[in-house]
Amino acid sequence: MAQTADATLGELGEFALISELVKIFEGDEHVLVGPGDDAAVLRIKHGHVVVSTDLMVEGRHFRRDWASASDVGHRAAAQNLSDINAMGGTARHLTIGLAAPADLPVAWALDFARGFAEECASVGATVVGGDLTRADEVVIAVTVLGQCTQAPVLRSGAQPGDVLALVGRQGWAAGGLAVLGRGFRSPRVLVEAYRRPEPPYAAGREAAEAGATALIDISDGLLAEAGHLAEASGVAIDVRRDAFEIPEPLQAVGAALGADPLQFILAGGDDHALLATFPDVASVPAGWQVVGEVREGQGVTVDGGEHDGPTGWTHF
Amino acid sequence: MAQTADATLGELGEFALISELVKIFEGDEHVLVGPGDDAAVLRIKHGHVVVSTDLMVEGRHFRRDWASASDVGHRAAAQNLSDINAMGGTARHLTIGLAAPADLPVAWALDFARGFAEECASVGATVVGGDLTRADEVVIAVTVLGQCTQAPVLRSGAQPGDVLALVGRQGWAAGGLAVLGRGFRSPRVLVEAYRRPEPPYAAGREAAEAGATALIDISDGLLAEAGHLAEASGVAIDVRRDAFEIPEPLQAVGAALGADPLQFILAGGDDHALLATFPDVASVPAGWQVVGEVREGQGVTVDGGEHDGPTGWTHF
Repeated sequence: MAQTADATLGELGEFALISELVKIFEGDEHVLVGPGDDAAVLRIKHGHVVVSTDLMVEGRHFRRDWASASDVGHRAAAQNLSDINAMGGTARHLTIGLAAPADLPVAWALDFARGFAEECASVGATVVGGDLTRADEVVIAVTVLGQCTQAPVLRSGAQPGDVLALVGRQGWAAGGLAVLGRGFRSPRVLVEAYRRPEPPYAAGREAAEAGATALIDISDGLLAEAGHLAEASGVAIDVRRDAFEIPEPLQAVGAALGADPLQFILAGGDDHALLATFPDVASVPAGWQVVGEVREGQGVTVDGGEHDGPTGWTHF
Repeated sequence: MAQTADATLGELGEFALISELVKIFEGDEHVLVGPGDDAAVLRIKHGHVVVSTDLMVEGRHFRRDWASASDVGHRAAAQNLSDINAMGGTARHLTIGLAAPADLPVAWALDFARGFAEECASVGATVVGGDLTRADEVVIAVTVLGQCTQAPVLRSGAQPGDVLALVGRQGWAAGGLAVLGRGFRSPRVLVEAYRRPEPPYAAGREAAEAGATALIDISDGLLAEAGHLAEASGVAIDVRRDAFEIPEPLQAVGAALGADPLQFILAGGDDHALLATFPDVASVPAGWQVVGEVREGQGVTVDGGEHDGPTGWTHF
């Protein structure tokens, strides 16, 4: 293995690397055929299958000098597992496509796969297939399959009068990214939050069971995602500034960078917190905080007015 | 739409393009939630879910000057639909991830999506989700979900004494690729076979029902795939040269390029023909041709001896 790990993808070759990768991904009793055939075969007991796909591109969604291969694996898995969370479902199986230059160290690919598998294992999900090919830059394509035991919670069910609630750390990853972008490595807790997010994986199903009317995960920024939810539901959403406590590390980064720390919370993604609407405050589960309300109309406001600042990020 | 189609991805923006793309992909009665939410939701009636994923990279798996956007869409879909065919299953639902530079014409993305959707529709499958992001080169990541009504046919079931059989055009796409690589555009039938393969989509299920012991689709070359099948089954496979009739266009290309036309058949992929093993000649379905036999041992031989030439292609 030492020899393998010291090689590049080009030196080791596609099939040798695949055979190493397959060892990292263990199946479970629902995986009738795992990696290695033309397709994987899964036993689906009952109910609905929930499926989502995401791409991560080196230099855009991650940098190899800002996070370890294992961290990138954790993040790639978390981003996709979070999409199933945002439907009120439970993630079960994933596929990974890895496009990479021939000079990518094999050790990077293996550590990436180990981090990916660890994050999946933390919610009981397994990797069942994948593809590996050459490209000029590293592109990671993940598809996740999950199941819903109750009706999935869509973006489109919010009603005027509902309350808007948030669960999970929010703004920490954006703060960490800002720090890394300036060449710093601390506050370490924020940098770690960016490198290895901790999405509230149990909260999606909790929200569904508590009667959430709409649910979305925050990957593109809180206000941006609130906008997607408002548009899909045909409602307006107002977010209250004073609903957010600014955690101490974000205050420190704001002061150091001369930025309003609330911006990390309002426009930050990458923590994969969840945003949901509930019929009333009484139905909001423990651990969630009410951060706004749903009104008639359209668009997103902050304290009733237009938000002066970024709301999230766009890909083009 | 004229304005949209004339724009680049960077000019139009991610969300505007997604809203155009979603119009191209129609659901079916099993798609409870299609593109636009955090995940798609599919109704799975019974049985096993078969899942496969593939990457295509510009300059490596396709060139925009060698095939139209629609052709690339057809090929990307065909490659994945074929993986479900190679399990004896029926493809149902697909996701597409598209990573592309900001200067990619929107018209290319839309034509690609239309070609992709057309190929899927030809087998009754639909696109249920996707992702779009920026990258330096075009990378297409597809995941396909299918169902098996009988036990899936794996690569690993071949037994000594079985016969090896082939269905579908084989070598045509490789001939077309060789022609394009020399800067020619004819024989047109080969170039078209490369641009828009016509996999034998009904043949996988037929093989399963006829009692095929092993099944694989030929995407990396006939001898290479025979080798994968032999390795997974723990057997040797011998391929007979005289089993193959060389179609006239391949003879013409062989003569023009000074190449043995049989090489296109033995080492060519991209037609997505199927290779299967059956217990005996009597069980081989109509339309398949017997091209070899399964023996004890390991590896692949041609007419009992080592093959002198390429067996397929490798990605690194």
